[in-house]
Amino acid sequence: MGARNVHLEIASQICSLNIFTVMARIFLKTLILRTSLEYLRLHVTFSSTATTRLSPVIFCSSFLQSCSWQFGACSRKLHVEADGPKPSPAAAPDRLPFSTVTQEDLAFFSKILPGRTVTDPDLLESSNVDWLKSVRGSSEVLLRPQTREEVSQILRYCNGRNLAVNPQGGNTGLVGGSVPVYDEIILSTALMNKILSFDSISGILTCQAGCVLENLSLYLEERDYIMPLDLGAKGSCQIGGNVATNAGGLRLLRYGSLRGTVLGLEVVLADGQVLDCLAMLRKDNTGYDLKQLFIGSEGTLGVITAVSILCPRKPKSVNVVFLGCENFEQLLKTFKLCRGMLGEILSAFEFLDSECMRLLNTHLKLPNPISDCPFYVVIETSGSNPTHDGEKLHEFLEEAMTSSLVTDGTVATEDTKIKALWSMRERITEALIHDGFVYKYDISIPVERIYQLVTDMREHLGGRAKSVVGYGHVGDGNLHLNITSPVKDPALLAAIEPFVYEWTASCKGSISAEHGLGLKKRNYIYYSKPSQVVAMMGDIKAMMDPKGILNPYKTLPDNLK
Amino acid sequence: MGARNVHLEIASQICSLNIFTVMARIFLKTLILRTSLEYLRLHVTFSSTATTRLSPVIFCSSFLQSCSWQFGACSRKLHVEADGPKPSPAAAPDRLPFSTVTQEDLAFFSKILPGRTVTDPDLLESSNVDWLKSVRGSSEVLLRPQTREEVSQILRYCNGRNLAVNPQGGNTGLVGGSVPVYDEIILSTALMNKILSFDSISGILTCQAGCVLENLSLYLEERDYIMPLDLGAKGSCQIGGNVATNAGGLRLLRYGSLRGTVLGLEVVLADGQVLDCLAMLRKDNTGYDLKQLFIGSEGTLGVITAVSILCPRKPKSVNVVFLGCENFEQLLKTFKLCRGMLGEILSAFEFLDSECMRLLNTHLKLPNPISDCPFYVVIETSGSNPTHDGEKLHEFLEEAMTSSLVTDGTVATEDTKIKALWSMRERITEALIHDGFVYKYDISIPVERIYQLVTDMREHLGGRAKSVVGYGHVGDGNLHLNITSPVKDPALLAAIEPFVYEWTASCKGSISAEHGLGLKKRNYIYYSKPSQVVAMMGDIKAMMDPKGILNPYKTLPDNLK
Repeated sequence: MGARNVHLEIASQICSLNIFTVMARIFLKTLILRTSLEYLRLHVTFSSTATTRLSPVIFCSSFLQSCSWQFGACSRKLHVEADGPKPSPAAAPDRLPFSTVTQEDLAFFSKILPGRTVTDPDLLESSNVDWLKSVRGSSEVLLRPQTREEVSQILRYCNGRNLAVNPQGGNTGLVGGSVPVYDEIILSTALMNKILSFDSISGILTCQAGCVLENLSLYLEERDYIMPLDLGAKGSCQIGGNVATNAGGLRLLRYGSLRGTVLGLEVVLADGQVLDCLAMLRKDNTGYDLKQLFIGSEGTLGVITAVSILCPRKPKSVNVVFLGCENFEQLLKTFKLCRGMLGEILSAFEFLDSECMRLLNTHLKLPNPISDCPFYVVIETSGSNPTHDGEKLHEFLEEAMTSSLVTDGTVATEDTKIKALWSMRERITEALIHDGFVYKYDISIPVERIYQLVTDMREHLGGRAKSVVGYGHVGDGNLHLNITSPVKDPALLAAIEPFVYEWTASCKGSISAEHGLGLKKRNYIYYSKPSQVVAMMGDIKAMMDPKGILNPYKTLPDNLK
Repeated sequence: MGARNVHLEIASQICSLNIFTVMARIFLKTLILRTSLEYLRLHVTFSSTATTRLSPVIFCSSFLQSCSWQFGACSRKLHVEADGPKPSPAAAPDRLPFSTVTQEDLAFFSKILPGRTVTDPDLLESSNVDWLKSVRGSSEVLLRPQTREEVSQILRYCNGRNLAVNPQGGNTGLVGGSVPVYDEIILSTALMNKILSFDSISGILTCQAGCVLENLSLYLEERDYIMPLDLGAKGSCQIGGNVATNAGGLRLLRYGSLRGTVLGLEVVLADGQVLDCLAMLRKDNTGYDLKQLFIGSEGTLGVITAVSILCPRKPKSVNVVFLGCENFEQLLKTFKLCRGMLGEILSAFEFLDSECMRLLNTHLKLPNPISDCPFYVVIETSGSNPTHDGEKLHEFLEEAMTSSLVTDGTVATEDTKIKALWSMRERITEALIHDGFVYKYDISIPVERIYQLVTDMREHLGGRAKSVVGYGHVGDGNLHLNITSPVKDPALLAAIEPFVYEWTASCKGSISAEHGLGLKKRNYIYYSKPSQVVAMMGDIKAMMDPKGILNPYKTLPDNLK
């Protein structure tokens, strides 16, 4: 949940070089506790006159706890007031000198996209703000192409006119990468939602970028296949966006990352050129694999218009076990044993600490399904033979118990109990929200050090935090570190950062395991990548999008050398 | 076996703009029928005075059949004489205007690499010619660095001096990518052979680029892991070269390509800059994934000096079955059933046609282990539980027999019989060599069309060929198409090409499934990649290696737009 970066303070600031009138109406429309999606949805609506430009507005899910936000302050930097004189690295930079959309531009768009050029502010609303309601742009045009040719026409035109473009899929990103920062034209892939082909022998699916992940999953399940990735946001997120952000998700341990499963991409470049890398082959060694550049580039190098992806067969059997371990060393030994004995059927190995369990008990009244332990593990298997899977699991558990790696445990094979056990892992964020103001980090570190950061952070913070908890994906070396305090606490934040980033960098970890950089984390890139590597990213950006019109202010840091 | 491209005619030609003296002694040293490696080794030695430059010499394994080669003809193009006035696209282009190595250069290299700057022609011999003895360069310097710093010093110097460099791993490539074309300095990674770390919990191995694949495999097997790739050349090939060529191999169906399993790379760029992308993390979403550019770029963008790679656990059980099918449609249905019922334990699904079986019977006296059928399948399983694997296999076979997908079959669980069954697949190339002059193609096509090319080729050629056979990796959509004739037959070649490439292109296939492009196939790239894609590859090359010193004449076509 790195999306809710603690440095993104409660603030709403409107500014423009040419503000004459700003009419702002804020409606606290809906406060939805989205427990399954682990966030508080805060719905805020702005309206402005057509001639004004709204600056980026960054909210935070902890809005209600602090209520120290401002409105109407004229500044080109955010958070100046909230955190003192030094702006947060997450603040948006000044608007770059792109053109602004004119009536002639709109006439052109309406001509090539009749009925699909949206300018109604109410209809634009949901595309201007991210799903966490943490970042807001002020685009006045939303384009909804249906074909790559239309995308090509749009980009060729925008590049010629020096108009900035924000490619947008399901808008479910967590780092502010999927919405405009200023008045970028929003290019939505939502209507590019056709499945182009499915090869039921090889399992290779080819589809347009706007296909919703869940729709693809349903399509495949009817054909006895599954998508190689699964996300909480599957009902909204689109495969093009998944690829553009290199989404991780729940099946990564088993099926690997999109870098291996995506076989081909069709991409439209900034100048409108169509790059056809849409191979439907498992093997192709003819030159550089250019499609990889677009996987995880967050729409800054091109707009993905179609994807081909290798899909695994649907498993016939799923089991879940919940175990307790005496210490983290035993937990790691359990993971090693598990990999050896469950081998090819292991599909998830998640953990939570006793602090997480305490919060689940206290705030959500979820009872511990086993006896109290310092650490808990959720293991999932999925395979092609229920009897075999059951036997493997039984043998593993016997060995784990006999060798005292685990002290207690329970197994689920039927749906209700499986869901109940998974909720112990999935509802932790909800429990955290009840605990207070939450500082959240999504860190990837070598698996043997995955919990050390939590221990070190506890010691480092002493009594300053209310709770310091750790949970996450042991199998992927991905830690969710969460720190709570009764209210927002800048002094606590200063104690956490940059300590957490420096600690992560010291063991060659990643400060963004799977969420990407987007707007919010772009300036933290140097904690995980050397300057030469970042500089080369800049060179590639400059080569492929010389005017920088594609998703500006995202992914790359402001101080690119 | 695309390495033995039929267009590479028997010719040896020596030329130079400044040839004064050429002393050539050709020794037909050894003719070794290397059945397991599927090629004829033809050992030829040249020597020349220090002031001369030898042009590339391209041999062919079919040397003995034709014996129409020439020697001493002064020409800058190859194959002109062999195939008529039009040179083969595989011929090397003119030498580019790089500097030549001077005594001052040698003094510099000797200073930074004392005792590891090789200039003795006898010692250089094996590095100047590829392992198929099909391509020869005339380098006079072989450098053997031990550290990335030394590689960096070498490249910084060569870039400044405009000296071309040929990075070389185990020199086991099949497309002439691993040896110099003219007098490029050979930069061998052989002494960079240290294992840097292994995490026995996550299975992440980090090592220098020069580690031999087999050594890594042995190291891992002691620790209950395996490498995610396995190749026939594992005793010589190096992991850096495997990554640089994106090697496929025998485990791709199960563990995926190196694009998914390679987690990090350390690369030295043309100007000597070290690019540290040596992440040891399963998840990292901080910017563009630059390491992917170097995977499969054949040393043209940088020299890989270290690799981190995710390794799977060692399987506890391996089984092999050999089955017969009535037609290719049934074979594909068998594959589909197999994927469903063997699921997570399926590790290979190979096929051969009855023509292959006839050649195995006729030339190698290998008896058919089952009754005669139009198609045969070799299936391998590997898993963590021998009992379960055996049961799964039994159930699959019962279903396949009951539903008449397969007409006959035999199973092997013990080593000798496993090897005997595998030999029916592995010794086909050997049988082909006995059949006559062989035209070989290594094609990747959508799996449902994998055999159509063989059928169409038979029809297209009519009675002109002696045998037209198909075999390969159904699981990967990778076909080995082989055509024999009693002797080399330019008219037959003209009937095969460009038909085979056009056919492949018409179903969006790849003309190089796993061997890469190197020198031999660089000009065929347009059959598999659109010109925009190739042009962007050229832009990337120009950006990363502006002087083009890294492995010139390889990967990219001569007529780059």
